[in-house]
Amino acid sequence: MSKKVAIGVDIGGTLTKVGIVDREGNLFAHTDFSTTKHKEFGDYLDELKSHIEELKSKMDFDYEITGIGVGAPNANFFRGTIEHAANLLWKGVVPFSQELQKRYDLPVFITNDASAAAIGEMIYGEAVNMKDFMVITLGTGLGSGIVANGQLIYGHDSQAGELGHVMIEKGGRLTGLGRRGGLEAYVSSTGLKRTVFFLLSDMMDDSVLRDYSYNDLHGEMISKAAEEGDPIAQAAFEMTGRILGEQLANFTTFSHPEAYFLLGGLAKAGKWIFDPTRKHLEKNLLPFYQGKVKLLPSGMMDKNAAILGAAALVWNNTES
Amino acid sequence: MSKKVAIGVDIGGTLTKVGIVDREGNLFAHTDFSTTKHKEFGDYLDELKSHIEELKSKMDFDYEITGIGVGAPNANFFRGTIEHAANLLWKGVVPFSQELQKRYDLPVFITNDASAAAIGEMIYGEAVNMKDFMVITLGTGLGSGIVANGQLIYGHDSQAGELGHVMIEKGGRLTGLGRRGGLEAYVSSTGLKRTVFFLLSDMMDDSVLRDYSYNDLHGEMISKAAEEGDPIAQAAFEMTGRILGEQLANFTTFSHPEAYFLLGGLAKAGKWIFDPTRKHLEKNLLPFYQGKVKLLPSGMMDKNAAILGAAALVWNNTES
Repeated sequence: MSKKVAIGVDIGGTLTKVGIVDREGNLFAHTDFSTTKHKEFGDYLDELKSHIEELKSKMDFDYEITGIGVGAPNANFFRGTIEHAANLLWKGVVPFSQELQKRYDLPVFITNDASAAAIGEMIYGEAVNMKDFMVITLGTGLGSGIVANGQLIYGHDSQAGELGHVMIEKGGRLTGLGRRGGLEAYVSSTGLKRTVFFLLSDMMDDSVLRDYSYNDLHGEMISKAAEEGDPIAQAAFEMTGRILGEQLANFTTFSHPEAYFLLGGLAKAGKWIFDPTRKHLEKNLLPFYQGKVKLLPSGMMDKNAAILGAAALVWNNTES
Repeated sequence: MSKKVAIGVDIGGTLTKVGIVDREGNLFAHTDFSTTKHKEFGDYLDELKSHIEELKSKMDFDYEITGIGVGAPNANFFRGTIEHAANLLWKGVVPFSQELQKRYDLPVFITNDASAAAIGEMIYGEAVNMKDFMVITLGTGLGSGIVANGQLIYGHDSQAGELGHVMIEKGGRLTGLGRRGGLEAYVSSTGLKRTVFFLLSDMMDDSVLRDYSYNDLHGEMISKAAEEGDPIAQAAFEMTGRILGEQLANFTTFSHPEAYFLLGGLAKAGKWIFDPTRKHLEKNLLPFYQGKVKLLPSGMMDKNAAILGAAALVWNNTES
């Protein structure tokens, strides 16, 4: 009997990652290519197909492809489209699944990357036995995938889980989309950096971070400085974790998850982000939630989370 | 063939309401009695049984009882319990379903009143064809029942949908449970009254509301004053609707509902609460949600919502 596999495709603003994965999470072949090379969507799909064919040629056992799962910004799960994605070249509404199915007679499932991450956590990660949890991705922005009753929450028009845009402070930091005070302006890799620069203005302490320009400062430098006792770096993590903890406590009143999983660049800072977040989450939870809500690193952190999450979409939508 | 009916029981802090309802929402017989008469939970259940038997004796056609649905504060759907309810006499964990099933060999389902209201909206109200919506109950406090993917969100330990406790302002109004700044301290019948008293302190305008003590002022008087052009009453509704609208915009980033339904005393104020809420909801929605999220009066507003919501639990959990 041939082995069932899924193709996972993660479309990022810069790179597209593709891989072939089985139900157990084995990644048999993978590659990546530039998302920005093709202005024409059809040309992009042709290149995607050539990479998939190349990966297929490397497979050295009998297999059967169950479907193709795709994580992409502004993806609409119900319509199989990518709609008005600000950081992709293809404007308007792109009929992704329909066009890909002209090239492959296979089921195609598409959703946004944080939702794919949540499904990945459920299929391959640490949420295998959980029915209620959230994955929070902390990269350039803050993404979220919400699972309740064992199902991903898509929402009425497939745009649930935009928690990076929760307004946490009136007239606060500019957030994009012309808004101020959105959560991701504070809690994300970018948010942490903005907080460092706020604290450089607010505090008087010496800090190695005073030697970097905004454009030169990267997240790992902030972790390293915190590790070496830098007061600005440590205060930046404390403030970031406080805000995240307070907001996770608020989110708990919504769907009462068993656990929050953190994934992405900022999550790699380990205790520097987990400790203050956990402290302020617990402190702000209502009494009947206290001690019941876990804050955990994603089980996908050291895996190829983006490809696996996309592939997991296939199993999630084809298994009954 | 005998007609299938459900028994709906709504346990409030003061009154318990009981009725017999069919799948179409016909309420054939109903009554109420004091919740606070019996300190012993067993005595209370005996009285509940005597009322159910009395209602049954009034039925003048062949019927079959499918189950008993119960709406109660601090109910745990998974365990069938009422746990540490602050406004009931029975302390600790009350094994409600188990004890009621000693008296009736029927399925018993219990959940909190706002969740029952959401299921009522789905079975009997205006959400019959919706898969993603929320019911917000605006009474003494703010309750919420959240439906996503066509299912009520219960959460990991049955305590999802506590949106009255979302923290909206650091160091804001005392909210109960020792917290400050919780949403229901601003948006509820009580919240509206607190806002009137804040505005009486803040504004200089003449107002009929200056003639009432806090204890004597009731919601309908505020609506009536607003109707008559009273500036304090109108400003109180505007502020309440602004805060509710802002928060509904935040909630939209979670589960992207098709509609919010308002139910309860404050919702009866009609345009005075709906107009400012709708305006500030729309203003604060992210661009891709704008024009897509409805704010509607609950379809249960003029019905016996509490009994019907409780009865709806039976159909929701016995139909496949």
